[in-house]
Amino acid sequence: MKLATVAIDGRTTWGIVEDETFFDVGAALKARYADLKAAIGADFAGVADAKTSVAGVPISTVTWLPVIPNPDKILCVGLNYETHRKETGRAEVDHPTIFSRYANSQTGHLQPIVRPRVSTDLDFEGELAVIIGKAGRYISRADAMDHVAGYSCYNDGSIRDFQRHTHQFTPGKNFPDTGAFGPWMMTPDELGPLGELKLQTRLNGQVMQEALIKQMIFDIPRQIEYCSTFTRLEPGDVIVSGTPGGVGARREPPLWMKPGDVVEIEVERLGVLRNVVTDET
Amino acid sequence: MKLATVAIDGRTTWGIVEDETFFDVGAALKARYADLKAAIGADFAGVADAKTSVAGVPISTVTWLPVIPNPDKILCVGLNYETHRKETGRAEVDHPTIFSRYANSQTGHLQPIVRPRVSTDLDFEGELAVIIGKAGRYISRADAMDHVAGYSCYNDGSIRDFQRHTHQFTPGKNFPDTGAFGPWMMTPDELGPLGELKLQTRLNGQVMQEALIKQMIFDIPRQIEYCSTFTRLEPGDVIVSGTPGGVGARREPPLWMKPGDVVEIEVERLGVLRNVVTDET
Repeated sequence: MKLATVAIDGRTTWGIVEDETFFDVGAALKARYADLKAAIGADFAGVADAKTSVAGVPISTVTWLPVIPNPDKILCVGLNYETHRKETGRAEVDHPTIFSRYANSQTGHLQPIVRPRVSTDLDFEGELAVIIGKAGRYISRADAMDHVAGYSCYNDGSIRDFQRHTHQFTPGKNFPDTGAFGPWMMTPDELGPLGELKLQTRLNGQVMQEALIKQMIFDIPRQIEYCSTFTRLEPGDVIVSGTPGGVGARREPPLWMKPGDVVEIEVERLGVLRNVVTDET
Repeated sequence: MKLATVAIDGRTTWGIVEDETFFDVGAALKARYADLKAAIGADFAGVADAKTSVAGVPISTVTWLPVIPNPDKILCVGLNYETHRKETGRAEVDHPTIFSRYANSQTGHLQPIVRPRVSTDLDFEGELAVIIGKAGRYISRADAMDHVAGYSCYNDGSIRDFQRHTHQFTPGKNFPDTGAFGPWMMTPDELGPLGELKLQTRLNGQVMQEALIKQMIFDIPRQIEYCSTFTRLEPGDVIVSGTPGGVGARREPPLWMKPGDVVEIEVERLGVLRNVVTDET
């Protein structure tokens, strides 16, 4: 099953995506679930049934919003592919590197990624996003995958000069409309095994980053185990699981995204997240 | 005016604190404001009026919750007093160091601070919390103080080994029930000028940290200016403005908080935030 949060005629809703059709399950279950996050928290109870009573609309008519516009937590994993760790010159570590995004830094599929007026150092980071289904603390590796509701593509868009103002990444990772999340989430049963899936970032059609999911340094069960040690994970929480080598900042000369650029994050079988860069107005 | 979020007989509400009395304004304005954050967003419209129709209860009968239990963002400023920067051996920087807490790491006045079962390296950090009133982006220094709804005491309780697992602080700053926030927020008109106010942390009655607010490296207008450059500030957002020297981790030998310890954060004229340390059950 593929699920998305969208706007239709200015009204925010969520529902099921099948091929080129969007089914507005959110409207049908409005009294039961406030949003997709609430439906995730109920393990999608009633969602498939509700779809049968809903007339679909062409996906070309919806405005894509971040898959989860309002997660309690967005946990980002830094330096989680060896190619990226090496290009940054960072030492090997025994634990995942975790920083955070605020929800209001996100944007949806086909929405602009905004280059702010205070910087030109706008960089891409293609990633696999893991969406938590079942809440938990001290989740073991063995149980971790039972806590996953689904996966999505994420562009952890970064303002590199702000990221490097100090040793803490927060400022560079939280500019509005820089964290692209979509188009949809896909449930684990539909996506299947992750390891051999290719993650790719393309800028104006050129491949910039490429890796297999199995090349992560800390795999998804380890990320869930570690994060749930220091915080209680909740339904709709997002773990953005790290980016491979090839970021613009580490090229010679650095390659920054600029207005008009088209950036795509593809996770094989899952989908393609596409955004155009615009200048802040 | 002093405002707090509390529970009364298991029901969460918010209201005004005067001397030893709590006025449940939240109940009176339930239809208008979902919580204190919503009242802040409306610049407390109707709040003082509503109080006149509310019978007070003794503050000894309420359970204190974090002043804002559900902020959109908690922005923490690291290394913002010279005494603390020096004890950590960190270089001087031109911008505030910003990391973040998630809302679910917070706890209220007189509630336990919990030492998790995975660490004994539990440390205190006494701080002044700044609560945002008026939303904004690119707020200038000159306008910054107009965006403040009030101030509170904060104990940015830290699990130091997790904080140092990598160069990003997030894991050590987000354990449940480690971020104490209270007892109340005080509006700027009642608190008056900040600079000469003393911030003090006491552990079992002994002074551990002490500074004047004017000794901050980056003052509050600068913090608001900087944070609002990379994120839109919203009503109820919390900026935890940094801790002075004297943390337990930098003592010889390190001094960790342990079950039964009483930790107090006092900001002169504002109040005293008191918590007892307990082990996780």
